[in-house]
Amino acid sequence: MEELRIIRLALLGIGTVGGGVYEILKRQQGEMARKLGVTVEVAKILVHNKNKKRDGIDASLLTDNWKEILEDDSIQIVVEVMGGIEPARTCILEALRAGKHVVTANKDLLADYGRELLDTAREHNCDLLFEAAVAGGIPIIRPLKQCLAGNHMTEILGIVNGTTNYILTKMTAEGMEYREALAKATELGYAEADPAADVEGYDAGRKMAIMASIAFHSRVTFSDVYTEGITGITSADIAYARELGCVIKLLGVASNTEEGIEVGVYPMLISTSHPLASVNDVFNAVFVHGDAVDDAMFMGRGAGALPTGSAVVGDIFDIARNIRAGATGRIHCTCYKELPIKAVGDMRHKYFLRLWAEDKPGVLSSIASVFGSNGVSIAQMIQRNKRGDLAELVFITDRVQGRHFQDSLTILEGLSVIKEIASVLRVHSA
Amino acid sequence: MEELRIIRLALLGIGTVGGGVYEILKRQQGEMARKLGVTVEVAKILVHNKNKKRDGIDASLLTDNWKEILEDDSIQIVVEVMGGIEPARTCILEALRAGKHVVTANKDLLADYGRELLDTAREHNCDLLFEAAVAGGIPIIRPLKQCLAGNHMTEILGIVNGTTNYILTKMTAEGMEYREALAKATELGYAEADPAADVEGYDAGRKMAIMASIAFHSRVTFSDVYTEGITGITSADIAYARELGCVIKLLGVASNTEEGIEVGVYPMLISTSHPLASVNDVFNAVFVHGDAVDDAMFMGRGAGALPTGSAVVGDIFDIARNIRAGATGRIHCTCYKELPIKAVGDMRHKYFLRLWAEDKPGVLSSIASVFGSNGVSIAQMIQRNKRGDLAELVFITDRVQGRHFQDSLTILEGLSVIKEIASVLRVHSA
Repeated sequence: MEELRIIRLALLGIGTVGGGVYEILKRQQGEMARKLGVTVEVAKILVHNKNKKRDGIDASLLTDNWKEILEDDSIQIVVEVMGGIEPARTCILEALRAGKHVVTANKDLLADYGRELLDTAREHNCDLLFEAAVAGGIPIIRPLKQCLAGNHMTEILGIVNGTTNYILTKMTAEGMEYREALAKATELGYAEADPAADVEGYDAGRKMAIMASIAFHSRVTFSDVYTEGITGITSADIAYARELGCVIKLLGVASNTEEGIEVGVYPMLISTSHPLASVNDVFNAVFVHGDAVDDAMFMGRGAGALPTGSAVVGDIFDIARNIRAGATGRIHCTCYKELPIKAVGDMRHKYFLRLWAEDKPGVLSSIASVFGSNGVSIAQMIQRNKRGDLAELVFITDRVQGRHFQDSLTILEGLSVIKEIASVLRVHSA
Repeated sequence: MEELRIIRLALLGIGTVGGGVYEILKRQQGEMARKLGVTVEVAKILVHNKNKKRDGIDASLLTDNWKEILEDDSIQIVVEVMGGIEPARTCILEALRAGKHVVTANKDLLADYGRELLDTAREHNCDLLFEAAVAGGIPIIRPLKQCLAGNHMTEILGIVNGTTNYILTKMTAEGMEYREALAKATELGYAEADPAADVEGYDAGRKMAIMASIAFHSRVTFSDVYTEGITGITSADIAYARELGCVIKLLGVASNTEEGIEVGVYPMLISTSHPLASVNDVFNAVFVHGDAVDDAMFMGRGAGALPTGSAVVGDIFDIARNIRAGATGRIHCTCYKELPIKAVGDMRHKYFLRLWAEDKPGVLSSIASVFGSNGVSIAQMIQRNKRGDLAELVFITDRVQGRHFQDSLTILEGLSVIKEIASVLRVHSA
């Protein structure tokens, strides 16, 4: 039998995710050799401050000197769990150029610099794995790249931000308003002090860029992703959604159409019968459609030390198996197409529009004529609430090009009988 | 750049799944080379009758002579989609011994002869992949073996038989009785002429044996799996389940406990708030729990030419990548433990018991005393329906060892005041 070998790795950072990785590797110590044929051990941990007290971490592993890791040829794997663009980007590039394999959980970096990093990995025949960068512990990158490789993938729908899913769940289940639900999320540590990256959909947008690149075999960067957040959602919208048999979720939507890739993140009405509708609290889920597999969904925890650590360690173990088999660089970047990205105005969606208008004859017909002259057809309308001499009107359109809907909206906003455009949301249609 | 290479494969069988694989490979022809670095082509198809007309299949590929494939050294991958034990087992063993890699969708074979097949693959450093053998198109084997490899997995819950899930969905959603729902499933081609393998839980049991082996790193065969079917479920049970906030699903349950592996397939009451409860119709889903990832769920189509073909082609592509990287046999069997299998009597579950007893004073106390003297405690009781001088009683127990519940049941059956034990079901408890 082959001799037992040890593979040494360095952790760059030992925060939440790094701590999770360290803990999991410790738990796996006993059976790693039988599982992988090799043992993986943490050789060094890069930190800012070596003297900070860290419970449960072997202090002799700490270093504040990146060169000490980079120049140590016995370290074959670098695990980047610092987050942020720099110095993470430089460290990863230098590690790859030094022939080290890299695991990263850094979605910000991948969504903007994925091509550069993956090209560098290929040049040096190194592995660069990043299962943890999308939807935390949920296996989704490897399923897309390998299990579903025989598919022409046409759609990805994702609830890929736990903070916003928690907020919307609280608003839906307990009738909270946005501010109250955000406060609750902050109190529980689900939302950061500056929640913009979550609530504006940027975090979800980065994950969608990464998944769309892999599923559609064409590079999508964060700047290609149109994002809208959830800060304008009110309990009134949620109540109307319920009446329409829907819930509101912050969905990442990526479609591989004949005319190019559509990718965006928006709060959307989605039917309660859709499997994503019952993915609640901080859980994440990714729903995909391919020409062979049809519909499939992957659900789990999108964040947290151990769930995210689970994905990182899965990648570490995969690299260890590659090293052992002499097969690193076995699967490189698979973005071999250059598909166009559709502008948001060219994307087709159903829309939900809630507005307050003067409650008098002729108003409805003015609105209808604006829609009609812009090629927007109305699938459903609800009129019920009044406030003084104003009536609340809710319209659900058929699928329409974004620019046509936007044109209607611009004209509606200029009509003197319309007092307030209260909400504009998209509606998921199968 | 590396030169373009062609990898030749043989299909053993061209039925539903084989036809799906053939179709998917045809669709992928255009981009396979860019995706994998190699092109995979179908070189031969083994059939019983070469002269049968098969639409869309290149007749020049057909052969009824296995030796022609076995002895063709240019064929590197054999895809076994015949089903059944023989000649599938012999063909796979001979192919592996000849140094060919094998993909199979054959759960019957793997659940009984997995060890022999995997040992043979290891001896000859060949790949033997079988993603399609469990839950059709849903990626689950590779996620368990690779993505979640850093976990100590403790539980797998699976809805892994589409036929029975369809029947139970019809019974739940439309109030059908079992016979009617089975007839509907047969009419739609979901149930076979002899539905025993599905409705008695054998098919699900085989899939649970395969998944438990992989997740718990210890060989579980079909004979280790206790199975109960759904033929005794009535609309009365379903109505009570609803009243208790549950639905009835045929669940495969595998638990990795301190005392050994528990594995069984039973119709179970499961809370409507559990993600598996809303997996309906022919959809399959696998819910797993690991110490790091926490809960995760994988959902999709468990059968059908293209979904199952999707999983087979994912395996073929993975082998092609291994061949190209010189890394076949990269991941072998990971059953490196020998954990005991718990007897059904030692497993602990909550139970649902529905019975008809004489409607007179003292009956309830006799029943309660039988439970009490066998250490079975009652969590909930419903008494509502009457039929002549009989009353229908429903009990939900706390978690109890199977043998203690069974002992109570044996005594209850002997009590003259009890006229009928109408149903005994298990209740999923988190």
